[in-house]
Amino acid sequence: MKNSAFPPLKIAIAGLGTVGASLVNLLQTAHNNGLNKRSHRVIEIVAVCARDKNKDRGILLPSNVVWYDDAVEMASAPNINVFVELMGGAEGVAKVAVETAIKGGKHVVTANKALLSAYGNALAQLAQDHTVSLNFEASVAGGIPIVKTLREALCGNTPKRVIGILNGTCNYMLTRMEASGESFETCLKAAQELGYAEADPTFDVDGFDTAHKLSLLTSLAFGTQIDNKIETIHGIRSITAEDIIATRELGFRIKLLGIAEKIGDNISQRVQPTLLPHHAAIADVGGVTNAVFVESDFMPSLLLVGAGAGGNATASAVVSDIIDLARGLHVLPLGQVVGDMQALVNAKPDAITRRFYVRFAVFDKTGAFATIAKHMAEQNISLESIVQHGKPEGDGTIAQVILVTHKTSAPALEKALDAIFEAKILAAKPQSMPIEPL
Amino acid sequence: MKNSAFPPLKIAIAGLGTVGASLVNLLQTAHNNGLNKRSHRVIEIVAVCARDKNKDRGILLPSNVVWYDDAVEMASAPNINVFVELMGGAEGVAKVAVETAIKGGKHVVTANKALLSAYGNALAQLAQDHTVSLNFEASVAGGIPIVKTLREALCGNTPKRVIGILNGTCNYMLTRMEASGESFETCLKAAQELGYAEADPTFDVDGFDTAHKLSLLTSLAFGTQIDNKIETIHGIRSITAEDIIATRELGFRIKLLGIAEKIGDNISQRVQPTLLPHHAAIADVGGVTNAVFVESDFMPSLLLVGAGAGGNATASAVVSDIIDLARGLHVLPLGQVVGDMQALVNAKPDAITRRFYVRFAVFDKTGAFATIAKHMAEQNISLESIVQHGKPEGDGTIAQVILVTHKTSAPALEKALDAIFEAKILAAKPQSMPIEPL
Repeated sequence: MKNSAFPPLKIAIAGLGTVGASLVNLLQTAHNNGLNKRSHRVIEIVAVCARDKNKDRGILLPSNVVWYDDAVEMASAPNINVFVELMGGAEGVAKVAVETAIKGGKHVVTANKALLSAYGNALAQLAQDHTVSLNFEASVAGGIPIVKTLREALCGNTPKRVIGILNGTCNYMLTRMEASGESFETCLKAAQELGYAEADPTFDVDGFDTAHKLSLLTSLAFGTQIDNKIETIHGIRSITAEDIIATRELGFRIKLLGIAEKIGDNISQRVQPTLLPHHAAIADVGGVTNAVFVESDFMPSLLLVGAGAGGNATASAVVSDIIDLARGLHVLPLGQVVGDMQALVNAKPDAITRRFYVRFAVFDKTGAFATIAKHMAEQNISLESIVQHGKPEGDGTIAQVILVTHKTSAPALEKALDAIFEAKILAAKPQSMPIEPL
Repeated sequence: MKNSAFPPLKIAIAGLGTVGASLVNLLQTAHNNGLNKRSHRVIEIVAVCARDKNKDRGILLPSNVVWYDDAVEMASAPNINVFVELMGGAEGVAKVAVETAIKGGKHVVTANKALLSAYGNALAQLAQDHTVSLNFEASVAGGIPIVKTLREALCGNTPKRVIGILNGTCNYMLTRMEASGESFETCLKAAQELGYAEADPTFDVDGFDTAHKLSLLTSLAFGTQIDNKIETIHGIRSITAEDIIATRELGFRIKLLGIAEKIGDNISQRVQPTLLPHHAAIADVGGVTNAVFVESDFMPSLLLVGAGAGGNATASAVVSDIIDLARGLHVLPLGQVVGDMQALVNAKPDAITRRFYVRFAVFDKTGAFATIAKHMAEQNISLESIVQHGKPEGDGTIAQVILVTHKTSAPALEKALDAIFEAKILAAKPQSMPIEPL
């Protein structure tokens, strides 16, 4: 704790992509700005590993840094204290290298949500067995310190609900769809051109990235083992300009949310486009920005908003993990002994009730309303409001009918929607999204 | 770090007001919810100190707790590990008790911003000398983990600006003034009746509470010694319904902000009602809620929003400090060795330029505009917009003239406003507030 003559903290960085390069820049900038005073010792980059040694990354590595081609070999080097894993991927080299580092008594800092979502329990156990830290602030919501907040700051609380905007790509696209009226496809193309979306956008737009991150937040919030078998994962592909307009008129905004919620002794994890009331601060979080809202027993609401991706923000989180190690701050990876943590028991879907937004593309036939109302009533779903969008222009045209239901469960609504669809009054599958109270 | 058989962490609580009672409740609730798994040891309340032993506080203290009438005596008791100071006040018993505890080798957790603002440097030095922790998460922004965020999470960053809504009383009143159109006095009375404002509201509404908290955030953000000699401390008393309406029409919202900003090597600390653009997320923070926005080099924006006062939220922060101690996490009070920290050098007021909102109550005389424009021009202040509010109804009536200036400094504006006031065209001193870019 005192600023005595601690030896330098020697770190090895595996992966010199955007985040790795930013990390080198950040450590050098911070060093020039007196980081040693805060970290109590010099943080020294002694080794790096990346594919192409000759690529220009816009960074100047220390002249005595050791270059490795093999991350696993670097992880077993004797002269490092901290192995920083920025390669990504749940399987393969990243996993083996992290395991090798831990087994060799090195602390690990990683931004790899896919790895932790799949193998976090075992890796946390391994770290615990070898009395090393496994820090992963950068793996969820970029530079937002949500891991530290859940693992430390809110540690006395018993959380009830965690709500996250965890994917910048989707949030950018939804914000743009709302602002411009453009379609999903147009916004995806724009996001790809801006570098916010991958050529294959599946991982982001179909909700899997959000699901990985959510599984980590759930474990930290509720003290259950990481469980990445999330049943409800819906992305944003089905959202249309009609949905954007209709939800706005109703006073809502659509966000792709990851939600973890305690229902009795069980937990619901779900990833889906969700309506938030316009007045909620988290509903205002636009563009690539991320946000996490935590509802707890003693701290009823805490909202964190900031850059959730990008080299600099992610490097900021990586460095905070490294400085914790330099200062000798060691918290168990999941905040408690893995053996003490219960497996997550999924809440039954019908135990979760919400109001729902539903949009039907209805053939303009007499009796369509009656059919909808009948099947809703059969599932005991009552309706809060009904709006018909687009003027019907006689038989054969399609009208957009927008409902807001009173509280019901997703399975009950699904039954009603299936029955309505089978009644052949709709031009397309109905759209539905839950409304999250805030 | 491992969950081995650590002895209980024995805490003594000085002060059983709202926060103290909530702390007892929180520790008992958390204990029942498995806190020991997260804290790695039992947190045991072994002693308490408060004025009236017989008062019903709605809490059940452990039967073997030792009751002290004298906090200083309790601070020197041999069987405690952590002294929790919830008495408040910069001088007197709180200070002596904290010093006694530290000198006796006890860790201290305090919510006392007044004490730290006045004596934080010396107390941090004392804690450092005795190798104990001095944790004070609860002293700023209640349950929002801004101390941990600045001291740990953003520690690799070099912050540029910290903006805080740090006083729930003022934020409640401003939010109410905006929603209801009521006057300052009416809203103050309502806040007092709701228990949000003291009978003597000076400390809150005149900005001193915000200033205390800001001085702590400044030190944590910029690594300078705590400096509570803040030159600019303006409260919210002068704000009128006219200001609320005019600023809203201009697209702004008035907030009492504490701002710390790095200007070259110097730092500006200022507390004053400030206009924020409506679109900024922090402008949406209403009621008694607090918020802190941090702008840094690698993490360009991080916003934290949550309950800034009240027993439960404050107790949540106190407990997070206690759990850090239970886990063996010790960070120097101000994040670095006190002897390494520079004294704060105030930025020159004319080095800070902002756009300003100005409201004049002008006697409806020909030439008033010309007089205003002339004196503004003499200080090289150009005008972005001019709006006249309230219809002039002939000579002798008073018109509200609203200006927005281009960027200028507070001293330049003050000179111009003084000259305009001396020209006897105004019915009252002009109102002015800076516009903070976000």
